[in-house]
Amino acid sequence: MMRTRPLKVALLGCGVVGSEVARIMTTHADDLAARIGAPVELVGVAVRRPDKVREGIDPDLVTTDATALVKRGDLDVVVEVIGGIEPARALITTAFEHGASVVSANKALIAQDGAALHAAADEHGRDLYYEAAVAGAIPLIRPLRESLAGDKVNRVLGIVNGTTNFILDKMDSTGAGYQEALDEATALGYAEADPTADVEGFDAAAKAAILAGIAFHTRVRLDDVHREGMTEVTAADFASAKEMGCTIKLLAICERAADGASVTARVHPAMIPLGHPLAGVRGAYNAVFVESDAAGQLMFYGPGAGGAPTASAVLGDIVAVCRNRLSGARGPGESAYAALPVSPMGEVVTRYHISLDVADKPGVLAQVATVFAEHGVSIDTVRQQGKDGEASLVVITHRASDAALGGTVEALRKLDTVRGVASIMRVEGE
Amino acid sequence: MMRTRPLKVALLGCGVVGSEVARIMTTHADDLAARIGAPVELVGVAVRRPDKVREGIDPDLVTTDATALVKRGDLDVVVEVIGGIEPARALITTAFEHGASVVSANKALIAQDGAALHAAADEHGRDLYYEAAVAGAIPLIRPLRESLAGDKVNRVLGIVNGTTNFILDKMDSTGAGYQEALDEATALGYAEADPTADVEGFDAAAKAAILAGIAFHTRVRLDDVHREGMTEVTAADFASAKEMGCTIKLLAICERAADGASVTARVHPAMIPLGHPLAGVRGAYNAVFVESDAAGQLMFYGPGAGGAPTASAVLGDIVAVCRNRLSGARGPGESAYAALPVSPMGEVVTRYHISLDVADKPGVLAQVATVFAEHGVSIDTVRQQGKDGEASLVVITHRASDAALGGTVEALRKLDTVRGVASIMRVEGE
Repeated sequence: MMRTRPLKVALLGCGVVGSEVARIMTTHADDLAARIGAPVELVGVAVRRPDKVREGIDPDLVTTDATALVKRGDLDVVVEVIGGIEPARALITTAFEHGASVVSANKALIAQDGAALHAAADEHGRDLYYEAAVAGAIPLIRPLRESLAGDKVNRVLGIVNGTTNFILDKMDSTGAGYQEALDEATALGYAEADPTADVEGFDAAAKAAILAGIAFHTRVRLDDVHREGMTEVTAADFASAKEMGCTIKLLAICERAADGASVTARVHPAMIPLGHPLAGVRGAYNAVFVESDAAGQLMFYGPGAGGAPTASAVLGDIVAVCRNRLSGARGPGESAYAALPVSPMGEVVTRYHISLDVADKPGVLAQVATVFAEHGVSIDTVRQQGKDGEASLVVITHRASDAALGGTVEALRKLDTVRGVASIMRVEGE
Repeated sequence: MMRTRPLKVALLGCGVVGSEVARIMTTHADDLAARIGAPVELVGVAVRRPDKVREGIDPDLVTTDATALVKRGDLDVVVEVIGGIEPARALITTAFEHGASVVSANKALIAQDGAALHAAADEHGRDLYYEAAVAGAIPLIRPLRESLAGDKVNRVLGIVNGTTNFILDKMDSTGAGYQEALDEATALGYAEADPTADVEGFDAAAKAAILAGIAFHTRVRLDDVHREGMTEVTAADFASAKEMGCTIKLLAICERAADGASVTARVHPAMIPLGHPLAGVRGAYNAVFVESDAAGQLMFYGPGAGGAPTASAVLGDIVAVCRNRLSGARGPGESAYAALPVSPMGEVVTRYHISLDVADKPGVLAQVATVFAEHGVSIDTVRQQGKDGEASLVVITHRASDAALGGTVEALRKLDTVRGVASIMRVEGE
């Protein structure tokens, strides 16, 4: 069964992930050959800084001319682990034009241009795989695309950013505030010097767009994803969550509407009951909870980032793409036949936890309750606490649309007796 | 892309799983066609009792002659959900001989005859898929075989039997004894009238054999799996586990030896720390924890049985096999190139929790400790409790081989001062 001509792989980028991919291709060469049915050979590594010493990488393979590398014409697989939009996009497109299949770990690019890249792969009869783009080592794209291909997925609820989960877990377990927990994450290397992409939810939003598209067999653009960061989550929010038997997670939530005719995708911090499997996901781990008609509730858990875990996912894709090359077949490509509209955030329906600072005098609760009722938002429970003329009201609602809740909050702010809206947080996973 | 000739599927068995498969094939026909690239048509259903009313199944499709059905010669896929060894094995073999690919949910058959069935599939150039055979709806075979194809799996630790997990979870949460918890499981339909296959670990052992083979790219026969049931787990064991910050689960454990040159597979009850992700798997849910070189720790969680969840896995396989048929390709078959020996249980290394009933007099601990030392089993902690001339010793060991522990226990039983060995339980997941 084993053929002798090796399959040729080029690596674009040789940072934390790329160097691990190269290392495993060398150290596990025999296993990879046995699993693929032919040896794989690393024939080029495109880097920005050619002078940097890269242990275990033959210096003769290193080049700064990534474009020339992908144009060789004899490549079977191009592995893109550069990240960002350009030059990654141009290089991937050129790779397809010159007959290579592509394995990418680039969530931003796939979220933004996945449809066009899939079209380019189709045009040239090649594969585009990107298991590593969502939740690192956790098999997620393949289970959603293949294992659940005979099922109907209704909801994907995930912790898909390790940095923010580390910060929130720290706040939960120590009572620390956001800044203190962020500082610790930075010191330990879990957060980058500029943590914006993580803490503002951009990274999670890209993953949500990819997951929603695959789960619902439709196209979900990055712009379709409602995004709220977690920089305003406070120690007081965690205290409130604890009182409700909840913790707080930054969640990526992709849902099919009850009538099945539209979908939504969003990223925001939310309270989640401690009994929910996602509540127990600690530190920088990721986990994605999937609800479908027939399978019911599934969860996939593991390290969502890091060189070796991401390399594991990349190598799984390399093996798959190589097998396809040998058999002359192609893996499942984009499946967007359902072409469902993406509804705006206002139509999302969930529950809310709202903390209000109010005047400590009779009739306030009645006023507040009236505002909720006028906007069609049904109250589940209210807790009132008063001290020295100051008081707080904590309202937990039944399920209501985001638009109705927004209208309610706007009206509450106009009440003389409401001094401020201390926090609004969605409650998920019930 | 859509071709009009439908792919033809025959169903062998129409019980809880088969009827769900048929139902979903009808209700989701359009989605399945879009995802496969061609419509799929159910052309025959082999049953034992043809007169039973089967809602949603065209009576004209029903036959009692399964052999004639698989010999039609125009089938693309045969779905085997009969269970047991025969006639399932003969029907699958005949299906391959007549040009069909096979999707099976039959753990016992795959565990016993997987190698021969894969060989038959190879001989006829057809696919054999069986995602549903292990842990129901949870994608596990595909992630191990494909997503982790570029990684080196070292350990698989799983709760793969829902009945026993329900019973143990009930004992843990209520303090009930085994019989009481089993009675409740039976009353609620989680346990069969004869629960032997579940509670004695036969079902889990078949799954362990399949998982070990796929994870380590080697053949592991059912006979290679060391198996202990959970009927002797007591409320006292749970009390001991709680004192250690543990719970008790029936685990399927597949391990690669530290030197990589051999593997082991076993099923037995074990203590597991409450902080381990498997400890939180409640009720009849299943979960499988996978440790690999690059990916690190992954967990896959979901419903391990039931008609609809199992049907979800079967349908995912039907879609994959149909796609392969259309493209003329085959999915990854058996991968057993590593050909690693399976070591006997005596070579398994783990920790142990041992409860001894001993005479309440001076020197007993010294005697007991000497026996452990003589057998090379290092003690981690000992707790001694005495009352009215009776005493108990609880010993927790460091890691030791099963053979060394066995020798230790045998010698302990011979001590005059040891009145009995109340329980021995392995401690895993640390």
